Amino acid sequence: MKLTTEQVNLYKKDTFITIESMKLLAVITAFYLICIPSIQGQSLIQQLGYPEDAKLLILHADDLGIAHSENQATFDAFEKGMVNSASVIVPAPWFSEFVVWARQHPEADLGLHLTLTAEWDLLKWGPVAEQVPGLVNEQGYFYHNVRDVISHASVEEVEKEIRAQIERYLAAGLQPTHLDSHMGSLFNEKFFPVYIKMGLEYNIPVMINSDFMKKFPGVKPTIPENALLVDQVPMAFPKNYPDGMAEFYSSTLRSLPAGVSVMLFHCAYDNEEMRAVANNHPNYGAHWRQLDFNFFTSDSCRNILKEENIQLITWREIGALLR
Amino acid sequence: MKLTTEQVNLYKKDTFITIESMKLLAVITAFYLICIPSIQGQSLIQQLGYPEDAKLLILHADDLGIAHSENQATFDAFEKGMVNSASVIVPAPWFSEFVVWARQHPEADLGLHLTLTAEWDLLKWGPVAEQVPGLVNEQGYFYHNVRDVISHASVEEVEKEIRAQIERYLAAGLQPTHLDSHMGSLFNEKFFPVYIKMGLEYNIPVMINSDFMKKFPGVKPTIPENALLVDQVPMAFPKNYPDGMAEFYSSTLRSLPAGVSVMLFHCAYDNEEMRAVANNHPNYGAHWRQLDFNFFTSDSCRNILKEENIQLITWREIGALLR
Repeated sequence: MKLTTEQVNLYKKDTFITIESMKLLAVITAFYLICIPSIQGQSLIQQLGYPEDAKLLILHADDLGIAHSENQATFDAFEKGMVNSASVIVPAPWFSEFVVWARQHPEADLGLHLTLTAEWDLLKWGPVAEQVPGLVNEQGYFYHNVRDVISHASVEEVEKEIRAQIERYLAAGLQPTHLDSHMGSLFNEKFFPVYIKMGLEYNIPVMINSDFMKKFPGVKPTIPENALLVDQVPMAFPKNYPDGMAEFYSSTLRSLPAGVSVMLFHCAYDNEEMRAVANNHPNYGAHWRQLDFNFFTSDSCRNILKEENIQLITWREIGALLR
Repeated sequence: MKLTTEQVNLYKKDTFITIESMKLLAVITAFYLICIPSIQGQSLIQQLGYPEDAKLLILHADDLGIAHSENQATFDAFEKGMVNSASVIVPAPWFSEFVVWARQHPEADLGLHLTLTAEWDLLKWGPVAEQVPGLVNEQGYFYHNVRDVISHASVEEVEKEIRAQIERYLAAGLQPTHLDSHMGSLFNEKFFPVYIKMGLEYNIPVMINSDFMKKFPGVKPTIPENALLVDQVPMAFPKNYPDGMAEFYSSTLRSLPAGVSVMLFHCAYDNEEMRAVANNHPNYGAHWRQLDFNFFTSDSCRNILKEENIQLITWREIGALLR
């Protein structure tokens, strides 16, 4: 694939030195062409061996590691419910509890929720890497929101931190089935190239949020037309909360289009611990996460999947295309 | 005070360069002579303005910051019970919850529980300082036990970490009323001088466990005869657990000698979170901490203190002698 002037300029605008940007852009292109090669224009669903009209779904719980409540509810949802994929925040305090469970469940589809923020008021964490001053606030923790990360952190610091999180995950004797991005902090023009670079270097599939492609059309030219992408990434937003999570998830599943979808949510128990974690934070808070848990462990969810002929797949199957 | 050859040799044996050791020993001596000066051989209790036969007691809850359960139970025990002093683990995940409460309770007697270990299986934390490789295990956290800290960490690394913990505490706009040492990791010949040095430098009283003086008689000569020391530091040990914590604390308070005592314990609620924190760790575990909470918020405790004429004091009163 030949790069357009527009594509090259996109990276020239970034904080990278131009020559480095050029190398990186080549790497990104290579990632999509080499790591998940599209054979003769086949879609991801075709390469996975399913008919074009199949509805394939990953039911993915984010935020493992932040609290015992989150870990336990997610583990329970794997064991008793329909949840079949999750990812962990490596710098979070309960990462070791995740490691114990992951070792006991080597078949589970578990990835790394790359994290550059610490969004809760009372429970905090910070970088795994050292000497990344642009990633920490005055209290020594990650910034509360993505905007501050983008304005303070350099691309080099973000790469250093992502690498440290992956290395700590690997050092636990585990292999992440995928990478994704907590609070979408890597879904911006500044850090997105590093995200892709790390996926390529470690040969791990990376999840790309489809909304990101709409919000930042500037990165679109960097993804070759024949790259294999997940088709939909549905997720509940605060506007959906008042009507109930079950209502949102039911209607989303009832109208799920054909293709590969990753549904993102968060399982936790609405208990003392989780209410303290989510202090002053009703959005994606303790009650919200309990409702997520309730739906994805319900008979209702199971029945809808069956009635709508939705087939669950995992990142393992997608990752197998890389090997 | 003039140093004996024995005192000097004690520090020559340490990992310090000899000249540094000599400077440090002078500092330690100064600490006791200058910071809490004994006037004409007066005891601590006399200098605090109490009669020699008074029974003065600090009811001290350790380990704030490790869990919401620990924080909430300790705050509740301050507000509803007899607990009147506590200290926090700065590198622990819930330090920010402590900061919020401490700012709302500027009168509370709150100190810094200097920490070099992460003893739980599923919940972990690590250094505040950077570039202290001797303080971290292969997973990047503090070592599980004190023995490993002593064998791997240098005195310089420990000083760097202690300093970082104090600086983070101060950066929160708070002033610790005292310093103490989690799991007694500073109560050994190698690290004890740093503990004293930091207390002096920041002008904060340091707690010295009386048992330490017995276990390590080698450090005794470094403490001048006229230093002001706490008289007793009673604490429940695993051998006391089978008979019940209430039984241990009641009998300890019933037989409390005159002088200044600091009673050490840990308040937490025996809930899901705390049981996960203390996984595989019945000693000082969730049930133990609930029993501690129960006793120090009970009418029984209140009555014993009254009947035995025990007067509660705080580290603030001791610290006032430094000013």
